[in-house]
Amino acid sequence: MTTSTAEPGTPDTAALLARIRDSFDRSGLMRHLGARLGDVAPGRVHIHLPYGPDLTQHLGYFHAGATASIADAAGGFAAMTRAPQGHTVLSVEFKINLLAPARGESLEAVGRVVRSGRTLTVVQVDVYALDTGEKTPVALMQQTLITLPEPA
Amino acid sequence: MTTSTAEPGTPDTAALLARIRDSFDRSGLMRHLGARLGDVAPGRVHIHLPYGPDLTQHLGYFHAGATASIADAAGGFAAMTRAPQGHTVLSVEFKINLLAPARGESLEAVGRVVRSGRTLTVVQVDVYALDTGEKTPVALMQQTLITLPEPA
Amino acid sequence: MTTSTAEPGTPDTAALLARIRDSFDRSGLMRHLGARLGDVAPGRVHIHLPYGPDLTQHLGYFHAGATASIADAAGGFAAMTRAPQGHTVLSVEFKINLLAPARGESLEAVGRVVRSGRTLTVVQVDVYALDTGEKTPVALMQQTLITLPEPA
Amino acid sequence: MTTSTAEPGTPDTAALLARIRDSFDRSGLMRHLGARLGDVAPGRVHIHLPYGPDLTQHLGYFHAGATASIADAAGGFAAMTRAPQGHTVLSVEFKINLLAPARGESLEAVGRVVRSGRTLTVVQVDVYALDTGEKTPVALMQQTLITLPEPA
Repeated sequence: MTTSTAEPGTPDTAALLARIRDSFDRSGLMRHLGARLGDVAPGRVHIHLPYGPDLTQHLGYFHAGATASIADAAGGFAAMTRAPQGHTVLSVEFKINLLAPARGESLEAVGRVVRSGRTLTVVQVDVYALDTGEKTPVALMQQTLITLPEPA
Repeated sequence: MTTSTAEPGTPDTAALLARIRDSFDRSGLMRHLGARLGDVAPGRVHIHLPYGPDLTQHLGYFHAGATASIADAAGGFAAMTRAPQGHTVLSVEFKINLLAPARGESLEAVGRVVRSGRTLTVVQVDVYALDTGEKTPVALMQQTLITLPEPA
Repeated sequence: MTTSTAEPGTPDTAALLARIRDSFDRSGLMRHLGARLGDVAPGRVHIHLPYGPDLTQHLGYFHAGATASIADAAGGFAAMTRAPQGHTVLSVEFKINLLAPARGESLEAVGRVVRSGRTLTVVQVDVYALDTGEKTPVALMQQTLITLPEPA
Repeated sequence: MTTSTAEPGTPDTAALLARIRDSFDRSGLMRHLGARLGDVAPGRVHIHLPYGPDLTQHLGYFHAGATASIADAAGGFAAMTRAPQGHTVLSVEFKINLLAPARGESLEAVGRVVRSGRTLTVVQVDVYALDTGEKTPVALMQQTLITLPEPA
């Protein structure tokens, strides 16, 4: 028999990670893009995306759609860490600034919950490009999500 | 010898289509997602995305990242129809509202230029889901792009 | 005794106008800026803002804050026309593109409901400048609002 | 005779403050709303807005338009601290999330430059409400600005 060491109201970290991993693994787009789930903590989730020719726009950089996809996912999973059991989250809207050409070996998106309410959650997401040892901010997202009972 | 029927300042339609198709075909992400270029007109571009398990989020709908990817691309190519020869466009930022669950046989994104300046272009994009003969709006995007000389 | 000629589910127009006007008149900011309520229809509200030196930024044009204020209000009241009796709406977020310098005799903001759900409403707002008989688009807003029971 | 202690390329702080204050004082809207310029540092500007009945929406809180006005101004002046002499900045677009009802004795907007390029600058703005000694985040803005030669 296990005893959770989590604070009251804070899901234990292993359970949280399992829950986020399960949702991540059911996301066909994340798998198809080659994205990998990174660190998961209450209110914060990292996603990594290695570069490849399947992710580019017409100039050969990461397509803004690829950048936005992992940013939306990192933000969504960060919000999901705050959702009650039996609930899920859906993106209501997001806004992303592309700060610099997204080029390098991989991207890393870091979603952080800014405000978590009963119905709506607001998240900020930073996206970095990793290129020959340097980490450069390439995008910044502000996202709104809604918490809903999980469909049966 | 052909004579262009285009208005002064309006690129001839075949040349415009060739230019947009060339950029579309060089976009690895569009090919990887299975997106297809639809109608191209001055200031307006359509992109279609047939449904598949590689495009889903955790509940089985189109992932917001897939929706945003074709919306960003449709808006970008719409802006590109207004760019002078030897120039290209890059997304500066965009904001997308997800209006309804994106489910159905395919998505269609329609980008329309709202304002085209020397440096910046503003575009609106509507995304529809096609499901058993019905066409439902599922997303709405407002996007800003910058026009730049094409890299050598 | 009056008989409403409204469609089932559509509030009668006079009652709708009275409701929006009452909220408009309780908005201290609208009065302080000198804004005037224009046309009100189900899902659509117009607000006018005559130019004055109290509304400017450092170059003498309408301040983006003034433009955004009437756009947010026009969108909010448009959403309110869709809210059930005893409910009100609050802005969750909005995004505005400033398309051109906002100069002229007055601004007109036109808010139109794009999607109205039980909890969230999405609105588009166009803002025009009126200058010596010409009407120029100067801003474009995409806004999300939440419907809540009116506080006692 | 004074010797500037500023780093090469960093305008000396007194000159910077004078420049921002001059633009602030020429903004009719800031004066009309009763806003006050706070701290000014390279890449960061604070603006304060004391509560008053001229700033409210229909429920008596600060109107989102008032919140957005000082957020847009704080972001704009933060960007202006990075603009070369003889240049000014204009808002291209912004997106604001209203995180909580904006009520209290005053608001404080803090604009911080995230990325400053030759043409475009991206800024984040936090807005706080001050209420009986407590400081609560009430809004979050992401803003894009363009740097232009100052009109004659």
